[in-house]
Amino acid sequence: MLWLKIDKSLKVTLTKQLFEQLRDKILGNVLKSGERLPSTRNLSKELAISRNIIVEVYNQLVAEGYLESREGSGTYVIQNIHLADYKIRAGSSNKYISDEKTNKEIIDFNSGIPDLEKFPRSMWFKFLRNSFLDMPEYQLDYGKPQGLFDLRLTLSGFLLKTKGIKCHPDQIIILSGSSEGFLLIGKLLKRDYTGVIIEDPIYNGIQKIFNILDIKLYPVPVDGKGIKTDLFPENIKDHFIAITPSHQFPTGSVLPVQRRIKLIELAKNMNNCIIENDYDSEFRYTGPQISSLHLLDPGIVIHIGTFSETLYPSLRLGYMVIPESLVRTCCEIKESYGSFTPSICQIALSNFIKEGFFERHINKMKRLYKGKRKILIERLNYEFGSPVKISGGSTGLYIVAEFKNVIFTDRIMNELLNNKVRVYRVEDHSIIKGKYKNKIILGYGNLKNREIEEGIKRIKESLKEYL
Amino acid sequence: MLWLKIDKSLKVTLTKQLFEQLRDKILGNVLKSGERLPSTRNLSKELAISRNIIVEVYNQLVAEGYLESREGSGTYVIQNIHLADYKIRAGSSNKYISDEKTNKEIIDFNSGIPDLEKFPRSMWFKFLRNSFLDMPEYQLDYGKPQGLFDLRLTLSGFLLKTKGIKCHPDQIIILSGSSEGFLLIGKLLKRDYTGVIIEDPIYNGIQKIFNILDIKLYPVPVDGKGIKTDLFPENIKDHFIAITPSHQFPTGSVLPVQRRIKLIELAKNMNNCIIENDYDSEFRYTGPQISSLHLLDPGIVIHIGTFSETLYPSLRLGYMVIPESLVRTCCEIKESYGSFTPSICQIALSNFIKEGFFERHINKMKRLYKGKRKILIERLNYEFGSPVKISGGSTGLYIVAEFKNVIFTDRIMNELLNNKVRVYRVEDHSIIKGKYKNKIILGYGNLKNREIEEGIKRIKESLKEYL
Repeated sequence: MLWLKIDKSLKVTLTKQLFEQLRDKILGNVLKSGERLPSTRNLSKELAISRNIIVEVYNQLVAEGYLESREGSGTYVIQNIHLADYKIRAGSSNKYISDEKTNKEIIDFNSGIPDLEKFPRSMWFKFLRNSFLDMPEYQLDYGKPQGLFDLRLTLSGFLLKTKGIKCHPDQIIILSGSSEGFLLIGKLLKRDYTGVIIEDPIYNGIQKIFNILDIKLYPVPVDGKGIKTDLFPENIKDHFIAITPSHQFPTGSVLPVQRRIKLIELAKNMNNCIIENDYDSEFRYTGPQISSLHLLDPGIVIHIGTFSETLYPSLRLGYMVIPESLVRTCCEIKESYGSFTPSICQIALSNFIKEGFFERHINKMKRLYKGKRKILIERLNYEFGSPVKISGGSTGLYIVAEFKNVIFTDRIMNELLNNKVRVYRVEDHSIIKGKYKNKIILGYGNLKNREIEEGIKRIKESLKEYL
Repeated sequence: MLWLKIDKSLKVTLTKQLFEQLRDKILGNVLKSGERLPSTRNLSKELAISRNIIVEVYNQLVAEGYLESREGSGTYVIQNIHLADYKIRAGSSNKYISDEKTNKEIIDFNSGIPDLEKFPRSMWFKFLRNSFLDMPEYQLDYGKPQGLFDLRLTLSGFLLKTKGIKCHPDQIIILSGSSEGFLLIGKLLKRDYTGVIIEDPIYNGIQKIFNILDIKLYPVPVDGKGIKTDLFPENIKDHFIAITPSHQFPTGSVLPVQRRIKLIELAKNMNNCIIENDYDSEFRYTGPQISSLHLLDPGIVIHIGTFSETLYPSLRLGYMVIPESLVRTCCEIKESYGSFTPSICQIALSNFIKEGFFERHINKMKRLYKGKRKILIERLNYEFGSPVKISGGSTGLYIVAEFKNVIFTDRIMNELLNNKVRVYRVEDHSIIKGKYKNKIILGYGNLKNREIEEGIKRIKESLKEYL
């Protein structure tokens, strides 16, 4: 007697019930090593279930190594199978927490999120649809790590038109977002350099990537005109450079051409290269897009761009333009990371750009953001007046507000949050701490006009005792 | 006179022509530092183009730092702007190479590609469509690095049913393919371990990831029953373990339960953990899916799975099940890599599984592959007879063929390729070289029956002088 309990009323199949009970009895040493099992015929009778099921279960237990079948003699528990403290363990807790939804009540001045409601989802979807249903079969396969040629060709034309970047499609690598670009280029440059000369403050996500790659940060201060090239270290040969010239994050300044030229000269003297990170220059409100640093010296500038802010973040699409000599090694690194960007979105994006929808979308969104920006600035001036100084708002989806006499301590941040408004500290992105304690970043891309108004009111309320 | 050449017949806008020519004259020192530019009115007359255009161009040049406008006095080239050897450089070559299409003439016995033609594209697309058009706006945003809760919940149920894995949805991390899992877990375990005990041979992509992470490989030989647990090193405390128990790659063997138990015991004694890589156990032809190693000890086993072979590779979806204690750190690493998996595919997959389409798809494909496998084995036996020994084919999309007296040198590989057939050497996946020189991997997932037949004929032809 095996004392098996088969319950035909359960949803679990009989095969599964029988398999698991036998397995557990073997592992738990109830069925001993070498013990002979009943014949399939007898067990079938005993349990009153079909002999086919018994045969199937025995076969599975043989395949997984629990039983062995000796020809003409029957089925036996295999030798040395006892697992002392075996028990089937379940995942520990059963509280299911789904914390994905953002708290709708909090007005969040996040700087990196475009207006998600206004994204033309059904239009974009037509492009996805055509690309997915029409694409040849081989594009369901991994694809080349560099990305689809068609998108790279489209981008090479588009980047010339919008950012003044002149490059061959083979110099472009398609990315799943700009972080991937930093990861790949960091990994590649680490072979020759030990550190990176970087703006301070700078987006802390980029600091994290360099940290994870064990690349030292050499911070250079930023002022209203971007990185202070006159403070560059001299005689540092083993550092490359990473900057955000079109719209410094988080200060929002634009690097003027004199400093750009100085930068190029410094890099050349150091026999070095520069990563140009451009995350939102598409949205410039006071004129056309600022030209890329890349055009001043395509031989040493690596340009990284993204579609997270121009389309939507979870699309996971970006690109980089790199000198031809680095392409092969960079693709090899991308491949060894196993990182491929799905073809479906690449084809859709290529067509979206080629048919002019991307430019139209940018223009539409620029008008929209310009309006939001105006309201944000007006409300700040209205609520706070001269104690607040606004900067960095010529481009992109945020401005920087400096509050005279307010230091954004954790306590104040909590008070703001209790008042259901979230802002971001410039100080959290600084490397050498202490210089930006009274500045916050106010992103407005994904806020409605009335949310901006209400948000500024709530900030006022939280700060009133400090002003 | 500025000697500007404006050509109204060109496609390039007048603004762009004028902007670029002025910029290049400034950078090229034709317009000197401090030089005064003609007034917008005069230049407009001189060039016979609208004054608005001139104003726009001057403004852009001021914004980028080339010019400065002095109130009441005019517009000047800024100081110290000359870039000695400046010239706008173009990408070097203009040969456009699109090498994405696979050479259709070559019959490719690649082991990791499912039948791409038989993928139910329009059915899958309905799921994509519903998920994309219906999903709430916040899912267009980055999302949590762990992946959507809904998919994790669906997977926790599905994995219990198919692989016997018991886990909480919060123990699951959604991946963009299984390589990402190795990257994250490798990075995480590197904090405590210097190396990894690994099967030899093992998929070289995994070797590459450990190499890139600077994790030492400690190879342990494999036989017809998977990794030889009796050859495990003793007293190695600073190595974790990585294995493919359900279907060893590339030998195709299945690890029986005695060795599994031995493995768990070894790992426990070393206070260690095990990465279980499962890339294709869904397709088992001789019975139901082999249970996961995970269920023997969920506290120390990390399970990595993928949808690249069950759905299609460029989908970029995988998952891992990890002990609760590691979840937070692992998500932090994923976040610092900037790696997020797009929500659209996650929602679609969750519904595809919940509504039973995934299981139906697996069953349909299993029948299809079983037929292909049969033909492959028949043709190998027919063409070669006893000098060829077949193994590893109980599961997945490939078999291993051992050719008596044939060593697959580069020369033979080239001859095969010249004969328009590509096969894969087991030896290319071995760590300690020399043991698998006469074995090749023959993948059949994405080949049609007649291609399999023709492919084996071509192999026969190429090898005839060696047999």
